[in-house]
This record gives sequence, C-alpha cells and structure tokens, in this order.
Amino acid sequence: MSSKKRVCIVGSGNWGSAIAKIVGNNVVEKSDKFEREVKMWVFEEMINGRKLTEIINQDHENVKYLPGFKLPENVVAIPDVKDSAEGADIIIFVLPHQFVRGVCKQLKGKVNEGAIAVSLIKGFDVAEGGGILLISTVIRNELGIPCAALMGANIANEVAMENYCEATIGCRDTKYGPLLKEMFQTNYFRIVVIEDETTVEVCGALKNIVAVGAGFADGLGYGDNTKAAVIRLGLMEMVKFCEVFYPAADSKSQQGTFLESCGVADLVTTCYGGRNRKVAEAFVKTGKSIEELEKEMLNGQKLQGPPTAFEVNYMLKNKNMEERFPLFTAIHRICKKRQMLNNSWTV
Amino acid sequence: MSSKKRVCIVGSGNWGSAIAKIVGNNVVEKSDKFEREVKMWVFEEMINGRKLTEIINQDHENVKYLPGFKLPENVVAIPDVKDSAEGADIIIFVLPHQFVRGVCKQLKGKVNEGAIAVSLIKGFDVAEGGGILLISTVIRNELGIPCAALMGANIANEVAMENYCEATIGCRDTKYGPLLKEMFQTNYFRIVVIEDETTVEVCGALKNIVAVGAGFADGLGYGDNTKAAVIRLGLMEMVKFCEVFYPAADSKSQQGTFLESCGVADLVTTCYGGRNRKVAEAFVKTGKSIEELEKEMLNGQKLQGPPTAFEVNYMLKNKNMEERFPLFTAIHRICKKRQMLNNSWTV
Repeated sequence: MSSKKRVCIVGSGNWGSAIAKIVGNNVVEKSDKFEREVKMWVFEEMINGRKLTEIINQDHENVKYLPGFKLPENVVAIPDVKDSAEGADIIIFVLPHQFVRGVCKQLKGKVNEGAIAVSLIKGFDVAEGGGILLISTVIRNELGIPCAALMGANIANEVAMENYCEATIGCRDTKYGPLLKEMFQTNYFRIVVIEDETTVEVCGALKNIVAVGAGFADGLGYGDNTKAAVIRLGLMEMVKFCEVFYPAADSKSQQGTFLESCGVADLVTTCYGGRNRKVAEAFVKTGKSIEELEKEMLNGQKLQGPPTAFEVNYMLKNKNMEERFPLFTAIHRICKKRQMLNNSWTV
Repeated sequence: MSSKKRVCIVGSGNWGSAIAKIVGNNVVEKSDKFEREVKMWVFEEMINGRKLTEIINQDHENVKYLPGFKLPENVVAIPDVKDSAEGADIIIFVLPHQFVRGVCKQLKGKVNEGAIAVSLIKGFDVAEGGGILLISTVIRNELGIPCAALMGANIANEVAMENYCEATIGCRDTKYGPLLKEMFQTNYFRIVVIEDETTVEVCGALKNIVAVGAGFADGLGYGDNTKAAVIRLGLMEMVKFCEVFYPAADSKSQQGTFLESCGVADLVTTCYGGRNRKVAEAFVKTGKSIEELEKEMLNGQKLQGPPTAFEVNYMLKNKNMEERFPLFTAIHRICKKRQMLNNSWTV
C-alpha cells in the first residue's frame, strides 16, 4: 500500500451511511494517513424525481436510508461500483449479504494490488450444496485480498447520533489492525482490535438465531429469567459452534472473543431490540408463518435469523450434532413449524 | 451427615418463599434422600391481626412476600431462628445481607456437626475497617461449616410462576454438589454446579454496580448500543475484579464462571429489570440523591448497588487501582455526586 490510503465504501444503506459519517470525518482528521476523498457506492434510485447519488453529493444526506444526519462533504456517492473501488487501498463492504457475490464479480481484477477489505456484513453466504460460507471468505476468494471484519452492538441510527458504543475488529494480519482502528475509531465509537477474525464474523451471524429464540420467549409471555436463559444458552451454543466448525489456534483467545462487543454485547442488543426478536414474537402471537410476517412487518424484506438457523442446522445434521445444539435445533424446527413451541424450552 | 437430610430455610422473603416452594416439593419427591419436613425461619409480623407464621402454617401462603402462590404443606414456618435450624443438615440462607451476622451469632454452637450451608444472598458484608467480606465467609467463620452459593437470573416471582430459568451453584467441595442440585433442581429451574464458589458469589454482588451504570445510561436517554457497552464493560470489570481480589487456582474455569447463569445471565436481567437500574434512571432524571429516591421509590429500603460500589471503591483505592476499573469508579463517584454524568462514558 502507498503511504496515504484511499478508502472506499461499498454500500450506502442505514449502517453504510452511519459508517460513512465516521470514516469521512476520520480521514480528514488524519490527513497524513488517508486520502481526503472517500468514494461510496450507492445503488442508484430515484427519490422524488432526483437521483439518490445527486442528493447525497449536493445535500450531503442519505435521505432514504439515514435521514436527518449530514454526511461529510468528502464522502462522494458513485453509482458504479467499479468506479467507486478504483484505486482504493481499503474497501469497506457494508451491503446486504445476498449482493456480495455479485458485487465481487464486478470488482474482480479491478482492485489495487495490496488493497485490503473489511466486512461489516452480518450474515452468512450459502456454500454450494448447502452449509455456511463466511462473507469474508467470499470476498477473499473472489478478490484475492485479505478481509477483516468489524462487528459489534451497533444500531446504525444510534451510532449516527454519536451515542457511546463499542465495536470489535477481527483482523488476522496484525500489520493492518492499527490502521483500521484509526479509520473507524472516534471518541464515541470505541474499537477493540483482535486477531480472531473468524469468530468475530461468525458471532455477527449466529446472534440472529438466538434473537429468534428470545422473540419466541417474549411471544409466550415468559419473563426476564427465561429470556436471560435463552440468551445465555444461545451464547454457549455460539461458543460451541465456533469450537466445532471454526476452531482457533488459541482456544482461550477464542473464548475471549465472546466477551468482546461482537459477542455478548451485540447478542444482548439484538435479543432486546432488533427485528428478528420482533418478528419471532409476532410468529408466536399470530400463528402466521415467517414468510407472511416478513411481508406484513418488513415490506417483504428477509429476516436473517431463520435462514441462518436453516444453514446452521444443515451443518449440524451433517455432523450428526443436532442434539448437542438443542437451542439452535429447536429454533430452526419451530421456524419450520416442525416442533411445537412448548417443548422447546425443556430440552 | 446421616442418610436422610433435614433441610432448613433461614429467611422467608420474596426469594426465600419461592425457594421454599421448590425445595418443599423436591424433598417430598426425593423422600429417600431428604426428611419430609422443611423448617423455614419467618421473622414474625402481624398481618391483619394474624401472625405471619400462623398464616403460612394454616393457609400455606406467604401473603406478605409471595402472595398468590401456595407453599407446600411440609414447609413449616418457625418464628425462632434457633428452633428452625435445630437438627438441620442443610441450611439455606436467604435473607437480607445485613441480618446474616446477627442470625449467625444466634445459631453459633446450635447447628449439627457435619451440617452444610448454602447462601442465596446477593451482596457483600463489610469487613472491619472497610472493604468486602463475602457472606459465605461470614457464615463459614461464624458457624464453622462449609458454605456453598446459589446465584442466577432468578426474579423470584417468575420462579414462583414456574417459568423456565437457570441457576448456578458454586460448591467447592465436590461431595456436596450433587445433593444440593437434587434439592434445588426442577424441570423449570435448571441447575449447573461448578466448583468456583467464590466467583459465583462475587458475581451476585458486583452485577448490582453495573445495573446502576445501566440505569444512568437509560436516564440519559442513550440507546441500546450504549447500554450494551455498559453491560459488557461491566462484565469485563467483574472478571478483572475477581482475577485481582479472588484469584482462582484455575483461571480458565474462572473465566467460564462468567458465562454461567450467575454471570452474564443474571447481569443482563438485572440491567434490564431490577430496582438498581430503575432508581439509577430516576437519579439522573430527577437530580435527587440516592437516599431520597430510596425513601420515595423503595419505602426506605436500601439499594445494593451504591453501597457495593462504595465498598469496591474502598478496595480499589487501597490497591491504587481506580483507573484500571473506570466504570466501577465512575459509577461510585456519580452516586456520591463527585463526578458529572457526562464525563463518565468517555473514559
């Protein structure tokens, strides 16, 4: 990488825009380390007769996905993803996980040699034939560059409001960690960098399964004790899942990862707020299917918990391990209406 | 101990009564291991012209502290604490921590040789000259018998309603663990026994400090991210505090204790429900002192978080360690109005 790093943000949704606000300001403050301009790929849409990229570049506000917050003027919206990433040294991926593969195909051969990526995407890709593929693996394989992960208890609007919070960067290659920390950290957005990249990323996806379980408990009218038990048992299954499927060289440092923001903090936030919890609660109370509720409550957007539970279940079944993960297994079966709700908490 | 164990419960408040319901049923079911009668010490009060012990023994309901739930008929209320503990093999301590020392003085020399105690009390005793003394240490020192600890995410009324939950028993001496588990466990009240007795007990007291911090965040109108950060940072300081002041022989198993119900689960429940959180929120919003709010909101009952923060601070100061525990330190100073609220989250 050259001395001043050029940063690009691939994605401009709610979280992408909140991150653009942080990173845009940081690169200006740290002008010895970063190029001033931050290109942000914006999927072009028309908003009241104007292009979204134009609105962002003229009014410095993403009126559709982060209304009410000004973006720094050095953040430049670009409608073509290849143009946005051209010449970038650091590529921040922050878009819905189902678009990652397609975007990477477009970027293939176009990114700087020596560039690095960091994924802010919470979720898994589906491997050919079923099972889980990490988003960072997709990026790494498609683009041939390293890919770190940033995860944490980070509801986008609260970050945009500059309320104090924390995040975890998992970055295997220690030479990039400090730079990524400088790019993301502010006095209200506190970063801890650890090397255990994989566990950081896996936490961000698995927590959505647990949140579905927490929503079931809420829907059944159980109280705080039960919910705390679901959260704790979920955390234990997250730990076990990583130990089985993504064993780290250092199991003690892997256990420590669950105590970072990407682990317990994000899990708690997701199980109290978050739409997986909310839809799961409605699932119990209304008796409707997840698909119906997605249409009614999320404008047809897809929930991440149930498909993640499905893919995880595929992996557990393959290893004959469903019984060792009773919570994940019960949540999956309940989503598919293959198990009654009331048997699921007494496993 | 003889073959059939005689169980006594010292205390009959909200939690004591919920536990009496569980233990009373369990000893009947497991009549090969336990004596049928469970004596429960009840601090005598008059309720509408009747003695509370009489009400409990005739109507089998603690109308004052757990109204609406029947106690098993084999639970017998006894107004004299010495009578209640006479001949007992297992003594369950579940009363406000400030009464433990006085009760132990009365029981001194009266308990069975070979008896064991288990403390359900969340809080610390104050050592002579200041600092922390564990409740189990007080019991052990005064009575000369072993003392285990049961802690967890256990709001008493929800346990009485038989909603699914978990608890942790810390029991150093492995020969007592299985028996205690049999005495407490039901299909809705799931017990994990671990040997790390001290950490289990310390968690139950320290979580109240963190809950005060969570209440401050709520009072300031910060959102879920900030609260998750407070909970996580609090958990990390709980871990560090135990490592410094109560180092275990096996540091890995000590870390594991924080993932049990007594650790992360109880912490989460307390930081979302719980009166420490609630009063701390009011402290921020009203500007009144903790003492005033205790009078207004708790009928003069004392909150546990602020005095625990005070005692912990005493120990940290003595070791010149306030800066290594910025959250505990800030919470203490804010309670004492020695620090402004808004500086406390940017440490």
